[in-house]
Amino acid sequence: MIKFRVLLLTSLMILSYSTITPVSAQTSYEKYIDGAYETQLKEYADLVAIPSISSIPANKPDVERAADWIVKKLLSIGMTTAKIVPTDGLPAVYGSWDKAIGKPTVLIYAHYDVQPVKDGEWNSPPFTATIDNGKIFGRGASDDKSGVMIPIWAVEAMLRQDKTLPVNVKFVFEGEEESGSPNFRKLLARNKALFKADFALNADGGQFSETQPSIEKSYRGAAQLEFSVKTANVDAHSGEFGGKTPNAVVALSQIIASFYNKDGSVAVAGFYDKVLPLTTGEKEMIKKIPYDPANDMRMLGTTAETGDPNYSPLERIWYRPTLEIIGMQGGYTAADGYSNIIPGKAMARITCRLVDNQNGPEIVDLIVQHINKNCPAGATIQYTYRPNYAVAFKFPDDTKAYRYVADVLTKMYGKEPLQTATGGSVGSLVSIKDELGLYAYSLGFQQSDERAHGANEFFRLANMRKGQLVYCYYLRHLAEEEAGKAKK
Amino acid sequence: MIKFRVLLLTSLMILSYSTITPVSAQTSYEKYIDGAYETQLKEYADLVAIPSISSIPANKPDVERAADWIVKKLLSIGMTTAKIVPTDGLPAVYGSWDKAIGKPTVLIYAHYDVQPVKDGEWNSPPFTATIDNGKIFGRGASDDKSGVMIPIWAVEAMLRQDKTLPVNVKFVFEGEEESGSPNFRKLLARNKALFKADFALNADGGQFSETQPSIEKSYRGAAQLEFSVKTANVDAHSGEFGGKTPNAVVALSQIIASFYNKDGSVAVAGFYDKVLPLTTGEKEMIKKIPYDPANDMRMLGTTAETGDPNYSPLERIWYRPTLEIIGMQGGYTAADGYSNIIPGKAMARITCRLVDNQNGPEIVDLIVQHINKNCPAGATIQYTYRPNYAVAFKFPDDTKAYRYVADVLTKMYGKEPLQTATGGSVGSLVSIKDELGLYAYSLGFQQSDERAHGANEFFRLANMRKGQLVYCYYLRHLAEEEAGKAKK
Repeated sequence: MIKFRVLLLTSLMILSYSTITPVSAQTSYEKYIDGAYETQLKEYADLVAIPSISSIPANKPDVERAADWIVKKLLSIGMTTAKIVPTDGLPAVYGSWDKAIGKPTVLIYAHYDVQPVKDGEWNSPPFTATIDNGKIFGRGASDDKSGVMIPIWAVEAMLRQDKTLPVNVKFVFEGEEESGSPNFRKLLARNKALFKADFALNADGGQFSETQPSIEKSYRGAAQLEFSVKTANVDAHSGEFGGKTPNAVVALSQIIASFYNKDGSVAVAGFYDKVLPLTTGEKEMIKKIPYDPANDMRMLGTTAETGDPNYSPLERIWYRPTLEIIGMQGGYTAADGYSNIIPGKAMARITCRLVDNQNGPEIVDLIVQHINKNCPAGATIQYTYRPNYAVAFKFPDDTKAYRYVADVLTKMYGKEPLQTATGGSVGSLVSIKDELGLYAYSLGFQQSDERAHGANEFFRLANMRKGQLVYCYYLRHLAEEEAGKAKK
Repeated sequence: MIKFRVLLLTSLMILSYSTITPVSAQTSYEKYIDGAYETQLKEYADLVAIPSISSIPANKPDVERAADWIVKKLLSIGMTTAKIVPTDGLPAVYGSWDKAIGKPTVLIYAHYDVQPVKDGEWNSPPFTATIDNGKIFGRGASDDKSGVMIPIWAVEAMLRQDKTLPVNVKFVFEGEEESGSPNFRKLLARNKALFKADFALNADGGQFSETQPSIEKSYRGAAQLEFSVKTANVDAHSGEFGGKTPNAVVALSQIIASFYNKDGSVAVAGFYDKVLPLTTGEKEMIKKIPYDPANDMRMLGTTAETGDPNYSPLERIWYRPTLEIIGMQGGYTAADGYSNIIPGKAMARITCRLVDNQNGPEIVDLIVQHINKNCPAGATIQYTYRPNYAVAFKFPDDTKAYRYVADVLTKMYGKEPLQTATGGSVGSLVSIKDELGLYAYSLGFQQSDERAHGANEFFRLANMRKGQLVYCYYLRHLAEEEAGKAKK
C-alpha cells in the first residue's frame, strides 16, 4: 500500500540574498518540479528496483542495467552526450551538456551502485521502492540513488523551463563506490579531457538536518581486511573431541577481543602513530555543532557509547581512526538445525576508517602483525586482502567553489551551512582532486538517520524537491558569479 | 562413479571360545550376509538418502519418511510387530520378534535421525550414499544409520537361515537423538510394557579400531544454550557511526574470550564444582589405552591441543567437562558482497559436555551469570534455552550383560575389548536405565575418524559384515548362556 503525505517546505518562503536569481524563475522551477513529482517518483522507484550491488559478482548484470537506465534517462532530458564509460570493473556513466559556450563547467559526482542486503531484516522488499509517511524505502534510496537522481532532475527542470543551462554540466556516476572505488582513479586518469571541468560537486553527501544545512569538510579513509582462522581440516564432533581440540570460533573471538584496550581504544601496535591531534579549527568547528549524542543513540537503539573516552563522540567519528568487525561467522549457525561440532574454521571481516596521513596498506600490515602475534596455539590464519583503500581527505573552505555551495545552501535553508565532517569515506573525491585538480564539495541531501548500508534504508521525499531547487539555484548562482568575475 | 573394494576380514579366521556356536552355523550366516551384500548396500543407500535431520522443522516429513521406511523393512524381515510409536515430537520406531517363548528379550537401541549439513563442505552430496575405497559416504552413514541397519540385517540373516531367533528381540529407533532426545524418556515411561526387556544394547556406539574391540563405560552429559548480543536496533554505517557505536560482534567476541582461562580451562565460576577426581579405576583404564594423540591430530588436521593442561587429552575428553562454541554469526558474512556496517546483533551457540553429578540446567545458569557479569557496556543479551540436557552416565562392568557383550567381541576380534569411555552423550541410555532398569551396553561399529556430525561423514563397509556377525553371535551367545543358567 502506498501512503504519502506532502511536506510543506516552509524554508522556501525565506528569500533574500545578494546575487540571487529573480523569484519568477525560482517559482517556475518549483512549479515544474511539483508537476513532475509523480513521474519522478516512478523513476526513483524504477532505479531503486534495480539491485545494483557492486560487491556481488552475480549482480553485475543489474549494475549494468542500472547504468543503461541512467544513460537513457540522461539522453531523454536533452544532454548533449550520455554514455557508458567502461572501467576495468563495473561501468561508469558519463553525461554532458556543453552548449553554454564560454561558461564554466561543473562536474557532478554520484554513485549508482548500492550495498548488499541481509535477508529477513527489511520491513519491505529492499528492491521495491515503498512510500510511507513521506519517505521512500529501499536499498540505495538514500545512498546514493538520491544523489544520482536529484541533480539529473534539476538539470531536466532547467532544460524544460529555460531550454538551456546557465553553465556546462558534466555527470560522472560511479558503479563501484560501495566496493571501494577500485577503478575510479584510473577512469579519470584515462579520460582527463572527458571529465575536465572548472568546478565539482559530490552529490553523495548530506545535510545536518531538515532545517540545518551543512558542508562536509573532511572524510575518513578506509581499509579492509578479511581473515579466516583454521584450527582443523574438519568440524569435529563436540563430544568425541571436545576438551582438547582447538575451536576456530574461540580462537577468532580471542583475536578480536585482543584488538581493543579496556577503554575501547584500538590495541594494535602503531595504529595511532600517524594520527595528528585535532587542530584548533577542528575543535572550534565541533563546538558549533548542535550535536546531541542522545539523538544518535535513540535512532540506532544503542544504550551506551564505546571508543576512546579521551575524545568526544564527534571527535571519534570524524577525526579518529577505527577498527570495526563488520562480519564474523564460524560453525553451524543456520536458524534451523543444531550441529554439535567444534568449528574448524571461522572468518571475520574488518573495516578500518582512517584519518590524516594514515596509509591503508600500512594499517592493514599492522593488523596482520597483531593477528599473527595474538594467534592462539593451534590456529593458522589466512588473509584475504581487498584492493580498495580510500585515503582520508580534507576540503579547504577559502575557495570560491566552497563559497558558491555555501551561498546557495544559506539561501535555501535561511541559515548558513554548518561545517561538518563525516566518518564515512568517498575515495573517489581524492581521485577527483588528484586527477582533475578539483575539490568536489558535498552537495547532497541524505541524512544520517536514513540507515545507509543497513536494513530499511530510506530517503525523505521532501528532499527530492528541496535538493532539485538547490541544484537549480547553484547552477544559476555559479553562472552569475563567474560572469560577474569575467566582467571585472 | 561407484568404486568398491571388498576388505577381507582376517579376524574372522580366529575362532576359539568357550560357549560358542558351532562353526557351521557361523558359516551359514557369513554366506547369507555375503550373498545379501548388494541388496544391503542398496537399502543402506535408500536410508542415507532420506535427510532425516531432526533439528530442522522443515525436515519433519523426511524424518517421518525414514521412520516409515524402517517399519516397512522390519515387517519385510518377519518381525512379529513393527510400528511407529508417536512421541510429543518426532516418531520412534518399534519392532518386536517375540516367538522365543521362555527365552530372554533383548532391546536394541539406535537412532535414525541425523545432524544437519553445511553447504559447500561435502565432496559428494550428503544425502546420496557414495561408495569409495571401501567406505560409504553420506550424512548418518556412520551416526547412526549404521546402528539402525546392522542389527536389523543380523536379525534378518538369522530369520532367513534359521527361520527363528534364539531370543526375543525388540528394537527401538529414536528420531530425536541429534536434538537431545527431548521426548525419549517420556516415550519409555508411557510404554513400559512395550519396551520391557531383560537386556539392552546400544547400537549407537563404536569400536576402538578395526582390530581392537571396545566397550564404552561412560558417556558425558550435555547442555546447550544459545544467546544473542544486541548493541543496536539496526546495523549502523561503519563510517558515519564508527568510533562510538557498540559493535555486537566485538561484544560477543569479548564474552566468548572471557569464558576461558589462559591455560584453556573454563573460567565460568563454579563450572568445575561438581566434577569428581578421576578414580583409580579410570586412571588404570586410561593407562591401558594405546592412545596416540598424534593420530587424532592427523585425522582432524589440528596442529595443537587445547584445554586444561593438568589433564591428559583422553582424561579431558572422557572425564572433564567442556564449554564449546559450536556456532557464531554476526554482521554481513555472505561469501559475495561486502557490507560496511557495525553489526547491531550477533549470536552464538554453546554446547557443554558434562560429567559426574554436573547438572545441565545448573551449568547453563552459571554460564548465564557469567555472561551477564561479563557483558560489555551497551550490549544486552537474549537467551534461548534448549530443553535437552543429557546426564553423564557410567556403566558397571561386573554384570553378566557386560560380559555377554565382551565375550562376543573377544571372539570376533580375537582379543578382549578395551574398556573405553566416550566424550559424547547419549541421553537416551540414562532413560533406558531409569525407566526400564537396563544398562544398554554399547555394541556399535562406528569409529572416531568417521566424521560424525561433520562434512564427508562415512562408515567402513567392512563393518557392515563384521557388525552383523557380532549381532548374530551375540543373540546366540545370550540364548546359550541364559539357557545354561536356567538349567543350573
